[in-house]
Amino acid sequence: MSPTIRCLALALGAACTPAIAQTPAKPQTMQQVLDASRPSDWRRPDPANTLYLDLAAGRVVIELAPAFAPLHAKNIKALVRGHYFDGLAILRVQDNFVTQWGDPDAEDAKKARAFGDAGRTVAPEFERAIDKDLPFTALPDGDVYAPQVGFTNGFPAGRDEKAGKTWLAHCYGMVGAGRDNSVDSGSGAELYVVIGQEPRQLDRNIALVGRVVQGMEWLSALPRGTGALGFYERPEQRVAIRSVRLAADVPEAQRTPLEILRTDTPTFTALVESRRNRHDDWYKVPAGKIGLCNVPIPVRAAAKSP
Amino acid sequence: MSPTIRCLALALGAACTPAIAQTPAKPQTMQQVLDASRPSDWRRPDPANTLYLDLAAGRVVIELAPAFAPLHAKNIKALVRGHYFDGLAILRVQDNFVTQWGDPDAEDAKKARAFGDAGRTVAPEFERAIDKDLPFTALPDGDVYAPQVGFTNGFPAGRDEKAGKTWLAHCYGMVGAGRDNSVDSGSGAELYVVIGQEPRQLDRNIALVGRVVQGMEWLSALPRGTGALGFYERPEQRVAIRSVRLAADVPEAQRTPLEILRTDTPTFTALVESRRNRHDDWYKVPAGKIGLCNVPIPVRAAAKSP
Repeated sequence: MSPTIRCLALALGAACTPAIAQTPAKPQTMQQVLDASRPSDWRRPDPANTLYLDLAAGRVVIELAPAFAPLHAKNIKALVRGHYFDGLAILRVQDNFVTQWGDPDAEDAKKARAFGDAGRTVAPEFERAIDKDLPFTALPDGDVYAPQVGFTNGFPAGRDEKAGKTWLAHCYGMVGAGRDNSVDSGSGAELYVVIGQEPRQLDRNIALVGRVVQGMEWLSALPRGTGALGFYERPEQRVAIRSVRLAADVPEAQRTPLEILRTDTPTFTALVESRRNRHDDWYKVPAGKIGLCNVPIPVRAAAKSP
Repeated sequence: MSPTIRCLALALGAACTPAIAQTPAKPQTMQQVLDASRPSDWRRPDPANTLYLDLAAGRVVIELAPAFAPLHAKNIKALVRGHYFDGLAILRVQDNFVTQWGDPDAEDAKKARAFGDAGRTVAPEFERAIDKDLPFTALPDGDVYAPQVGFTNGFPAGRDEKAGKTWLAHCYGMVGAGRDNSVDSGSGAELYVVIGQEPRQLDRNIALVGRVVQGMEWLSALPRGTGALGFYERPEQRVAIRSVRLAADVPEAQRTPLEILRTDTPTFTALVESRRNRHDDWYKVPAGKIGLCNVPIPVRAAAKSP
């Protein structure tokens, strides 16, 4: 197997980006790639676009994606700043699909929690125009669902150059705004996270708003709901939400400082290659390819004071 | 979107099977397809190749795949008939990867449980020759990892017609025999199940031996292990296995009678199409495609006496 990434996906219409050509020729394991990384290969998520979903079990850190869903990010932040989610609950855990949280009384006009400054509808942000200023590191191996796939700002994304559109992709850990049949009904007051095989049929049908960058285990390992669509049937089965806060609103000492590997660097391209062809002794037949949702995006603890 | 499946994957080398051409022209939801199914569209898994993994929380039903891993199936059945797994434990739950069970003392020659009639090594069964008698329903949308993908006997499979090989694919719920670096070290005494995004890089590197057809929630929702590779760090965190039995060895009254939708019928092809293009009101942009591990294989309760 070749240690350098070649553009194998031309038949699928995927273009090769310059980043792909910068792959080091020497085979490396992912650990070797990370050990050789430089401080500039890592970034700190913006506290103004980072949510802390605090459960009794632990903290879930969510990075919002305002480049793809600016209106949803704004509305979710308005809900969070009004402490909308505090005391609400995880309502639904459907095996191999999603975990979802929000207001158990959302459908009851008398009991439903007030939205405060946030809107009840948000214009659909299911895709956006490709922009030269939006970085995109293309993967070389194609995709079943999209003409081209890769990473933008640390998020998995699909792309259709002919249509001039790009969109976030439903990979494990991606967070979206649940909606009813109406396309503007996903206000962000009910959010879901992908906990199984990529439900890529949802791409371009609903607004993805961010990604869990730490704490997935507090959302993925919950008991599955036994009602239709995995909803919990009894109120006592629900998992209480202590609070949801914007990292920027949390005192420095209570923040969870993280660094995330940048996805627009030669180091990231080397990491992708280390996963396309594994070089440890266990593997006998390197795959030579990788799917979008199989690419890990490493996260590490950061020092408290940047 | 076209309601009929066309062979969109020619660029990826996938051939269209006759089954694909039999798709009904009328758009249907999956529920409509199932409602219209006939008794002959369903099959009962063979009790001689069905395992019951019984935990305190519930029963996990695993269908073995002797057509792909006959030696492993035989060895696992020898272990099961010797009650090898009874009182052993789930040792490892790695988020978005696998849950694994076996003997906590396997590495301790003094404490390790005896294998009885079962072998300690089994020849690798990572792929097998394509055989005209082995049914294969090809999917039309290509795949990142394999030249062709589809279903054989109810199992997701990859295929390379040029090389004349086929193999089981690591989709959610697939069960494999953990191994060390040596290719024959996967005896079946340590088994794993996929609980997240398809780890397709494992395909052709390890023997898949079957699939969980009911009870995945008892394996997927367990607390994640905090040790390396998701191993539980303290013995008390492990989840005890009450027993593993072959369905054929269990009295009729204690069996879990199931029917599984056959994957070699026009009904299954119609089901695939109903998932490629969703026809309920919620979807605005039908995907028009489907990935191998996104195809559901419906299972339903059967009458106690066939």
